Amino acid sequence: MCRLMLYLGPETRLSSLIVEPHHSLIRQSVHSEEREEPLNGDGFGIGWYASEHSPEPAVFRSITPAWNNRNLLNLARVVASDCVLAHVRAATQSSGVNEANCHPFRWREYLCMHNGDVGDFRLVRRKLLASVRDEAFGNVYGSTDSEHFFALFIDSLLANEEADPVLRMAQALAQSITRVLELVHNLGEGGPSYLNIAISDGEHAVVSRFTDDQGGAPESLYYFTGQLYPDVGPNAKHKGTQAVTVSSERLTADPGWAEVPAGQIILLRRDHAPQFVDARTGRSL
Amino acid sequence: MCRLMLYLGPETRLSSLIVEPHHSLIRQSVHSEEREEPLNGDGFGIGWYASEHSPEPAVFRSITPAWNNRNLLNLARVVASDCVLAHVRAATQSSGVNEANCHPFRWREYLCMHNGDVGDFRLVRRKLLASVRDEAFGNVYGSTDSEHFFALFIDSLLANEEADPVLRMAQALAQSITRVLELVHNLGEGGPSYLNIAISDGEHAVVSRFTDDQGGAPESLYYFTGQLYPDVGPNAKHKGTQAVTVSSERLTADPGWAEVPAGQIILLRRDHAPQFVDARTGRSL
Amino acid sequence: MCRLMLYLGPETRLSSLIVEPHHSLIRQSVHSEEREEPLNGDGFGIGWYASEHSPEPAVFRSITPAWNNRNLLNLARVVASDCVLAHVRAATQSSGVNEANCHPFRWREYLCMHNGDVGDFRLVRRKLLASVRDEAFGNVYGSTDSEHFFALFIDSLLANEEADPVLRMAQALAQSITRVLELVHNLGEGGPSYLNIAISDGEHAVVSRFTDDQGGAPESLYYFTGQLYPDVGPNAKHKGTQAVTVSSERLTADPGWAEVPAGQIILLRRDHAPQFVDARTGRSL
Amino acid sequence: MCRLMLYLGPETRLSSLIVEPHHSLIRQSVHSEEREEPLNGDGFGIGWYASEHSPEPAVFRSITPAWNNRNLLNLARVVASDCVLAHVRAATQSSGVNEANCHPFRWREYLCMHNGDVGDFRLVRRKLLASVRDEAFGNVYGSTDSEHFFALFIDSLLANEEADPVLRMAQALAQSITRVLELVHNLGEGGPSYLNIAISDGEHAVVSRFTDDQGGAPESLYYFTGQLYPDVGPNAKHKGTQAVTVSSERLTADPGWAEVPAGQIILLRRDHAPQFVDARTGRSL
Repeated sequence: MCRLMLYLGPETRLSSLIVEPHHSLIRQSVHSEEREEPLNGDGFGIGWYASEHSPEPAVFRSITPAWNNRNLLNLARVVASDCVLAHVRAATQSSGVNEANCHPFRWREYLCMHNGDVGDFRLVRRKLLASVRDEAFGNVYGSTDSEHFFALFIDSLLANEEADPVLRMAQALAQSITRVLELVHNLGEGGPSYLNIAISDGEHAVVSRFTDDQGGAPESLYYFTGQLYPDVGPNAKHKGTQAVTVSSERLTADPGWAEVPAGQIILLRRDHAPQFVDARTGRSL
Repeated sequence: MCRLMLYLGPETRLSSLIVEPHHSLIRQSVHSEEREEPLNGDGFGIGWYASEHSPEPAVFRSITPAWNNRNLLNLARVVASDCVLAHVRAATQSSGVNEANCHPFRWREYLCMHNGDVGDFRLVRRKLLASVRDEAFGNVYGSTDSEHFFALFIDSLLANEEADPVLRMAQALAQSITRVLELVHNLGEGGPSYLNIAISDGEHAVVSRFTDDQGGAPESLYYFTGQLYPDVGPNAKHKGTQAVTVSSERLTADPGWAEVPAGQIILLRRDHAPQFVDARTGRSL
Repeated sequence: MCRLMLYLGPETRLSSLIVEPHHSLIRQSVHSEEREEPLNGDGFGIGWYASEHSPEPAVFRSITPAWNNRNLLNLARVVASDCVLAHVRAATQSSGVNEANCHPFRWREYLCMHNGDVGDFRLVRRKLLASVRDEAFGNVYGSTDSEHFFALFIDSLLANEEADPVLRMAQALAQSITRVLELVHNLGEGGPSYLNIAISDGEHAVVSRFTDDQGGAPESLYYFTGQLYPDVGPNAKHKGTQAVTVSSERLTADPGWAEVPAGQIILLRRDHAPQFVDARTGRSL
Repeated sequence: MCRLMLYLGPETRLSSLIVEPHHSLIRQSVHSEEREEPLNGDGFGIGWYASEHSPEPAVFRSITPAWNNRNLLNLARVVASDCVLAHVRAATQSSGVNEANCHPFRWREYLCMHNGDVGDFRLVRRKLLASVRDEAFGNVYGSTDSEHFFALFIDSLLANEEADPVLRMAQALAQSITRVLELVHNLGEGGPSYLNIAISDGEHAVVSRFTDDQGGAPESLYYFTGQLYPDVGPNAKHKGTQAVTVSSERLTADPGWAEVPAGQIILLRRDHAPQFVDARTGRSL
């Protein structure tokens, strides 16, 4: 399990997003409140878009905890972006703590991060890999269930011909969820999956909140529509457009935070209100 | 604040000491129970003696948390010793997380580690350094109050002519406590010091439990006399001798754990019952 | 490309093997002499056996260079073993520098390390993985060609019923070489493979020196029979038995170093003279 | 010894400066050409200014080599700045490899980095520290001669009342050189100092090229006036102003590179031609 957040909106400094909020992700690396175990200290990662410089987002990952990483604090203080993903990790037993296992993972212009588990992953890994095309396979460098799930997403995305980019991402995410559940059903021993997955291309994002655990609720996930953070001034990219933040835990005490409904995917387009689709079918509700 | 443990006894594997006990130091790196904040994730260090190979103890330190460090687990599984010090760190704000700031610190055959704080250290650091001889000064590589305290100890030890090695160490430790309190008194702003300090030369050890905080108790510190862990078999060094373990928190549910009295230093000699002296005077009570 | 060494003989301190020789592996991390590029600075690893404590060898790996790693120097000074593997890495472009990609790799009591390349590995990886049994597949945590080759070895070993342990290892290694060459031939674009592979179970070892590069020679590989290093005294395990060292470059100026013939595997048994077999057939020459 | 570079000019991406040039600093981390030993693999650091976000520059430092650090490559690809300092380190024996010992060092808005050595530093360290005011003392976190030299600079700068910022920096640098030489003369054993020191406040910079080694030349140092790198487009800060690059080795084959004269300090003001002063007196030549 882990904690994650995603931001799409006017250009803001990274520290406004991940350091300064009262219950920031950095705070959640030590004191998360909606997990049984409050600690997410097995490394971290941030990804951000700077389209004026490169279509590919930057990723900064480290195996040391987020709360005391000076490079992270330095970067966050001076780097601004209009689309940011950040993740603090609580490693599961099966995969080691190394940079290749830190989120977010990247493929082309896409970033992906995960809070949860693929049920019985050890039993599923082989067939999962065998089921995806070469390009998706070739993007797997580590041993986490999360990065393997991302390979399913890449494969599903490449097979999807939907013209609207965010619908295409949402359908690919829903299809990946369906595919992984089927693999677990066929190969596993009944272990539940927890699939809070956030994926972005820099202009859009989709985030699922899902579990097939009969007795349990999915991991927590909230969203906030509107500007919680200062933009970077008159030249801020997308200045004045509506921002959306999605986060495992509410970053502030603002009453505007709402839960992403269980079993759904939230769809974000720049300067639009969020939409929701079913996490298994990808269809509107 | 931090957590620490020290072992002197028959040769045993490191994992028997720091991994396997129910409330092991590795567990305390995540779930310490006698601190307000349970987390000690800002690096760790172990030091151990292997006198058959080298009079200088080995030190293994890392800036990643102890709980998921595979090198530590590997080492602990196959390395055995008759004198071991281990420490998990919760960094204070003033000093960074880097290897030079991880405990234990070494000078000649001595190892030192600290759980606590030197009051108003920022105001004290200069004069402290100015007060010690060159050899003690030259052993400071980082910026922690703990390593600076160790310089005081080195200086006090070199000035001390007591013939009995453990009394000499205890007197030097008591003198260092007195000296640092005087520096804080003269230069500080009233901040209290917490000085649980463990020092060993491989055959003896002294551990203080001390604070001058009027309103507070010193950090927790326990000791256990007797063998909690298996020796390594018929050829174990010091086989059959009495072991002593000193630890910030009780490692096991065994009723034999006792508190080190506040304001005292516990003195350990191989195969002897512990003695106690006053933490400021170094004299028997 | 990388540099590696393996030792089987009387118990000796690790620093005798990897620090103190004139042209030690640590020196080769900066100044190797038989590669075009002298630098092997992309992490390192050591593995060693301590059968009195654990049947599984210990592995210590790090992504920082070997030449200035204080933990390595500390360990090497006080740890002794009768079977040691050590490796300094020069990472190829396709795989990142992280601990999962550092050699040696472990499976059960076996350790494996590699100096060289699998030709066109990117094109071969999938089918290679698909060709091995689950247990071999499940041991792959990173993205190096070397660790994938080790999966082939595990698979070949499990299929081999030869009773003699070192012959079994040699046959499995030869079979793995044949299998990987066939995969490269079928799926690659003509890239040559360089396969200097060292594998040990703590009591025996096999090391290949091989390339299928028509125009080139295999990577350098030498062996030395006899004691180059002091044992650890009267209680040294296997005291007085004959030692063998195998190394990418000659560790000393001693004239006793001989080349492992190209295209062969050297077989080591404790206290026996080395044998040689063909690297493709596993048969005596 | 180390390699360093500094850039002041129109806003450009970091990778244009430190990755893409034919003989970039990242290349120099492996293959520097004007040192006896080509390797600078003991960590690295970059500092850059983003005055629109923070008056304090950002610093990113790491103990792993620059040539294979993915975070560095990622950052460099998307971060742009109008004033950049970068450094690759070859650690001397006396100080360990940890982040506190990586350059550049920071104090307020100033960054400092060093290529060279303070002669007999071990003998000089104490008196050097004793000679500076509290604020300068309090900025020392590690154990390098370089960071201690920076404390001398801070002390000299705070004592200097020159109104022109770059003259003030140059005078403080010259005074620091004089002071350190005097300390080495009084306390050392005749060891020479090599003092190529680069300091910037984001709008100006001073870089010395100096040694008092009678028999030797100072470390190499070059400068280039004019634009070697693309700016970041129509909104680049300081677009069209004249750029200056100072570097231990020539980054490109362009004939416009000139040597900084031995014994001098080069002074850079934004959009001005470089000036030169004597490295000991700070006076024009």
